[in-house]
Amino acid sequence: MPQAIKNYPLIAAIDLGSNSFHMVLARSDDGNLRILERLGEKVQLAAGIDEERNLSEEAMQRGLNCLSRFAQMVNSLPQDAVRIVGTNALRVARNRAVFIRRAEEILKHQVEVISGREEARLIYLGVSHTIPSLAGRRLVVDIGGGSTEFIIGQDFESQLRESLQMGCVSFTQQHFRDGKITASRFAQAYTAARLELMTIENSLCRLGWQEAIGASGTVRAVGQAIEAGGHGNGEINREGMAWLKRKLLKIGEVDKIDLDGVKPDRRSVLPAGVAILEAVFDALELTSMGHSEGALREGVLYDLIGRHHHEDIRERTLTDLMVRYHVDTAQAARVEAKALEAFDQIRATWALNEEHDRELLGWAARVHEVGLDIAHYHYHKHGAYLIEHSDLPGFSRDDQHTLALLVRGHRRNIPAGKIQELSENSLKITRLCVLLRFAILFHHIRGPQEAPAITLQAGENSLDVTFPDGWLASHPLTQADFAQEAQWLERINFTLRVK
Amino acid sequence: MPQAIKNYPLIAAIDLGSNSFHMVLARSDDGNLRILERLGEKVQLAAGIDEERNLSEEAMQRGLNCLSRFAQMVNSLPQDAVRIVGTNALRVARNRAVFIRRAEEILKHQVEVISGREEARLIYLGVSHTIPSLAGRRLVVDIGGGSTEFIIGQDFESQLRESLQMGCVSFTQQHFRDGKITASRFAQAYTAARLELMTIENSLCRLGWQEAIGASGTVRAVGQAIEAGGHGNGEINREGMAWLKRKLLKIGEVDKIDLDGVKPDRRSVLPAGVAILEAVFDALELTSMGHSEGALREGVLYDLIGRHHHEDIRERTLTDLMVRYHVDTAQAARVEAKALEAFDQIRATWALNEEHDRELLGWAARVHEVGLDIAHYHYHKHGAYLIEHSDLPGFSRDDQHTLALLVRGHRRNIPAGKIQELSENSLKITRLCVLLRFAILFHHIRGPQEAPAITLQAGENSLDVTFPDGWLASHPLTQADFAQEAQWLERINFTLRVK
Repeated sequence: MPQAIKNYPLIAAIDLGSNSFHMVLARSDDGNLRILERLGEKVQLAAGIDEERNLSEEAMQRGLNCLSRFAQMVNSLPQDAVRIVGTNALRVARNRAVFIRRAEEILKHQVEVISGREEARLIYLGVSHTIPSLAGRRLVVDIGGGSTEFIIGQDFESQLRESLQMGCVSFTQQHFRDGKITASRFAQAYTAARLELMTIENSLCRLGWQEAIGASGTVRAVGQAIEAGGHGNGEINREGMAWLKRKLLKIGEVDKIDLDGVKPDRRSVLPAGVAILEAVFDALELTSMGHSEGALREGVLYDLIGRHHHEDIRERTLTDLMVRYHVDTAQAARVEAKALEAFDQIRATWALNEEHDRELLGWAARVHEVGLDIAHYHYHKHGAYLIEHSDLPGFSRDDQHTLALLVRGHRRNIPAGKIQELSENSLKITRLCVLLRFAILFHHIRGPQEAPAITLQAGENSLDVTFPDGWLASHPLTQADFAQEAQWLERINFTLRVK
Repeated sequence: MPQAIKNYPLIAAIDLGSNSFHMVLARSDDGNLRILERLGEKVQLAAGIDEERNLSEEAMQRGLNCLSRFAQMVNSLPQDAVRIVGTNALRVARNRAVFIRRAEEILKHQVEVISGREEARLIYLGVSHTIPSLAGRRLVVDIGGGSTEFIIGQDFESQLRESLQMGCVSFTQQHFRDGKITASRFAQAYTAARLELMTIENSLCRLGWQEAIGASGTVRAVGQAIEAGGHGNGEINREGMAWLKRKLLKIGEVDKIDLDGVKPDRRSVLPAGVAILEAVFDALELTSMGHSEGALREGVLYDLIGRHHHEDIRERTLTDLMVRYHVDTAQAARVEAKALEAFDQIRATWALNEEHDRELLGWAARVHEVGLDIAHYHYHKHGAYLIEHSDLPGFSRDDQHTLALLVRGHRRNIPAGKIQELSENSLKITRLCVLLRFAILFHHIRGPQEAPAITLQAGENSLDVTFPDGWLASHPLTQADFAQEAQWLERINFTLRVK
């Protein structure tokens, strides 16, 4: 259900990358962005992940110090005007929850960890708004600290989004750990990158492109070093790369890199970046790659503006999901309407959030039956699996997770243990779950039959449903249905009373 | 890959139902069946399932005694000429493996537990071959001991298959346990059935039908009792059912039921059967229901003949799965061809079965990438989930299971623990997995590039791959790829040598 359009004069995006953290602050007028401020710090979060895949305290501290500096600019902005996304280092780190909680305290805004493909989508959005438009398709490559994203798209629309587990920070650790630059290390890093690329190169090439664009600091640094060396005008080409590689091998040590165009804090990850770029050029048979300044954080901003103007990509994602898994849309719409009606009646009593919680409930109603397409038996579990593991453009990992829990609990037993274990907002999720189940029960006999007017009254752990006098007695099936539901809810110490 | 057509003069099907076990023996000539023998015994397996969902020793013994009597007729038939299927009681029982092992020892043939929807498909096949053809659609309802199947189909083709967890044995236990027949118990059983039906009635009615047919002993018994009471000619109709229900209430106790047309061993489950039938009539707004003698076991026979004549439903199921999840079919075909070529080279050394194991490997090759449609990350796991939980017409639970394991293990680590835990044939599955991975690796760089001629040599826990002289040295990426694979296989103590 679309909310009223909101226009925030100031919006901000923060990108908690594996190598650097970035913030952009912008003014948005009718869908146009004017960037007011850019901040960036090389935090190297990925370098602080140990072998148990935990973020070290030092790395967290580096990140939080940086965020304290960002905080001032976003603290006072409204919730919907700020989006903060974490990428590969936070996807990978087991103890990310600790970092996220501390970051949220500092920033006063929610931090979302996004999937690799969601990252790819946002990068494309950022790039496509930043460079001149093109008639044909465009390949965008963003070499990050922990992952590299590949996107093929046209205009502002990405068509293929991939994310590989290789980045300039992680490859530096794996192949150039002691700072020596040798031919065999280059070959090792290059081959590792080619093996990763094998899983996607064919599908990328099948779609094809007219232009290749690189985003991220690595691509910029390589392009500038090559230009400073007299090869090309800032774009990356094969002879320039060969020159740079020879140069790096001659230098022999990361610490001694002193190339025009390469900032000191880029030096340590340059050899790994060059090896990855060379592998990308060979695997995709590129001859040249331009550079775009726009990237993830700009994409986040454009996505934010889209949400405010009802081009919410999440709406389309859910519609696509419903079509793909053949959801009975009329039934989903009936359930959604009823669930939101119930939500509005008892939102205040249950301290539910008027915007995001309402949104979550509506989404869950729309997709609660996707699992039926796999099999009827345990279909709520299949639906939860699909929602948990699919690439859902526009959704954060957290929202995907909550949606999966709601779908999992929409019939039969409510997995209270799982909800508690997986979310800090277990009470909220359980309440949304009860509302979803109520709406489904209400429309259990599918079809547009006339529905009685009911009233709801919520207690801390109870819900009273009042039907019109005599209605229930003349509908014994609904009565039995609600009696069964009361038994399910009793298991989580929730009382459903029907009269 | 189709095998040579085989024609077995004698074929047999055994149906290990929740209420009765049945066997049919038939002669098949060019797709026509002539039934030679029918045996049936009321084993009431479902009644022997305790609250921990275990089959009691007595119930197992009843079943095995019955199978000893069946055994003589099937012991000496070739593997492919016999199919033995278990239904709801065995789907539900936790200790089914114990029973199945003992049953297989007696019968000398494999026992398959089939899913509810596979059961529905086979029932429809049996019914549609037994009753006169009809221009329009047909609804088939089979009330079993533990589950009831609903199918809508046309000609020999089922279009919608559903299976509900309600049956005349389980409902007798739940609602008529002490043998008393009262109006309130009827109402209880009726309402429980209506609640079950709610989840499917709308989708059935949306498709619609011209004729309703009942299969199974319950429908026959009710029809005959009604006919004997002077209502109709063997079909079930509303006034006949009302008459029978009044009659049963007047009798008041299961033990005293003495109705013309109802065999003594049908008496105890008759009230539950009538309650379920009444709920089906009301939910689906039926006015009358005919009866077919053909059912699951006949369906199994027709399915068997189909397999021998290359109308193997499993081929179509896999093709449907590949289409639905957008599998790159050219790549799947390359991998399948290579996998089977490798299989044929080392089948004898690894003691693999020329027919079924080869079939399994080919199937796995075709569907190993289905999970990509959900997400790239961990797609082997998503593929395994889809194959494990989807309704795959024609496949037994066991084959589905093995296929899922092969897909799960087709890349990254081979889940040796899971394979051991879930299958008695862990060595065989691991070997098939190695062959599948080899074929995938061989075609890792997708596309129809020229492949070198290689030779394979298998040891107990090793595989030697020999490339043409100098080939590997000039293809360093493939070399690195195989080196990485050798590391994965080392984890399960398997040696891959490449030269």
